[in-house]
Amino acid sequence: MHPLDAATKLETSGGNFTGATSDAYWNFTGPFGGATAATLLKAAIDHPARQNFPLAMTINYCAPVAKGGFEVIVSEKRTNRSTQHFAVEMKQGAETIATATLVFAARPEGFFHTPGTMPAVKMPEEIDPPKAKAPLAWIDRFDMRFASGFPVMRGKDDAPLGSARTEVWMRDEPRRKMDFLSLMNMSDAFFARPFHVLGRLIQVGTVSMTTYFHCDEADLVEVGDDYVLGVADASIFAKGFADQSAWLWSRSGKLLATSQQILYFRDKAFVPGGKK
Amino acid sequence: MHPLDAATKLETSGGNFTGATSDAYWNFTGPFGGATAATLLKAAIDHPARQNFPLAMTINYCAPVAKGGFEVIVSEKRTNRSTQHFAVEMKQGAETIATATLVFAARPEGFFHTPGTMPAVKMPEEIDPPKAKAPLAWIDRFDMRFASGFPVMRGKDDAPLGSARTEVWMRDEPRRKMDFLSLMNMSDAFFARPFHVLGRLIQVGTVSMTTYFHCDEADLVEVGDDYVLGVADASIFAKGFADQSAWLWSRSGKLLATSQQILYFRDKAFVPGGKK
Repeated sequence: MHPLDAATKLETSGGNFTGATSDAYWNFTGPFGGATAATLLKAAIDHPARQNFPLAMTINYCAPVAKGGFEVIVSEKRTNRSTQHFAVEMKQGAETIATATLVFAARPEGFFHTPGTMPAVKMPEEIDPPKAKAPLAWIDRFDMRFASGFPVMRGKDDAPLGSARTEVWMRDEPRRKMDFLSLMNMSDAFFARPFHVLGRLIQVGTVSMTTYFHCDEADLVEVGDDYVLGVADASIFAKGFADQSAWLWSRSGKLLATSQQILYFRDKAFVPGGKK
Repeated sequence: MHPLDAATKLETSGGNFTGATSDAYWNFTGPFGGATAATLLKAAIDHPARQNFPLAMTINYCAPVAKGGFEVIVSEKRTNRSTQHFAVEMKQGAETIATATLVFAARPEGFFHTPGTMPAVKMPEEIDPPKAKAPLAWIDRFDMRFASGFPVMRGKDDAPLGSARTEVWMRDEPRRKMDFLSLMNMSDAFFARPFHVLGRLIQVGTVSMTTYFHCDEADLVEVGDDYVLGVADASIFAKGFADQSAWLWSRSGKLLATSQQILYFRDKAFVPGGKK
């Protein structure tokens, strides 16, 4: 079984779901947020009343997920003719670990227009993978080829600020056929923008992430297990929080998903003894 | 009482809230989505356990709000040292009309950086308001001065596509001191991107909207009742849905909030007899 399928594997009993964290996606203090998001998406997809395709998902990370079992409660909030709304909650014991809202929708054919443009970058085959050994398990779950914006740790507090923009080809490692779970997982696979801008590893964590899907199953089949181009940027770092906007493009130039998130950061002045 | 305060006025009983729709913000089939979002934000702000400032809000519009009364149920999901999570639901009778998740957070001073740049545009005093009488009540609740991207209705199906980008100075009408409710309301005050691109009025509706706040009360006081510059753009129109990204800037160049939404659109081929 692919590690992403193992990480998002759920047992169901009476409409609720149970699962367990996966070491293969381990991050600093718990599983990588993308895998948690994919798990909650999987629960909603598996809800017996679910219709049509994922359109929008927001996940709020309330607390670190502890190693071990968890419960996922899926509530159907509203089912219309072509859209459907769910609320999802992840719990460990009595504690709420994450909340999410999901919208599923029928996707009619019709007017198609992409004002956003896929950047012209080197193909993934022309780019070497990063040389450094990944310090965390989840990073090894992606084959990343940085076309621009590899996070350079400058190590000096007075170094000039880096760019907030990254262009990186990504695919699951080991390779896996693209689906909504993988896109959700990849929405969170960009290194934190504060690392790029400050040039040092500081304490960060995603607080809330929203992903919109612009593809259907035919688009996913077309991607297969190929790379997708992820583009990430930020508008602001202010008062302890930074935003991130992201776009996931197929190699053929289809915009598969867009995502935004807000993350907290505490640079060393605020976290004496914190991770640096 | 200002119309926005009237629209977001809530009575509380036992932790839940009740309110009523406001004709002053009426849209095609119900109240303007921004006013509904501001109302749900108001409920969370008024929750007795609420701490600190709004950081992130996602609202999902499940069904049109019918004229009349509604209930808002606020559930505290998790309170950490510096962040706090709520789930909010708007109901009319037994029906779920909207769901939302909110994050509140303490906002420490520290590293500040705005890689996004405020566009250089004409000042609002140099721009005339639109000449046409607003066809819907909510539009009259904003004083809008379009620096670029006023939606031109071209009326011909074979006209070239318009730009998805708009730059518009906005303030509440009548004037009102800026606060989080007003920013939330303004997050949804851009005309639907499909109108701009297609150049005709088609059936549209916001399905989900997420707004991140990057300001604190001192920033809001600095804005006072002045205009803010709203910038809106879109990455994609595909399979019946379009996205929108938006930025709200103070005149002094502070990025107060960023927002994204996904909206459905049905162009006339899909809605025989629909609004055109």
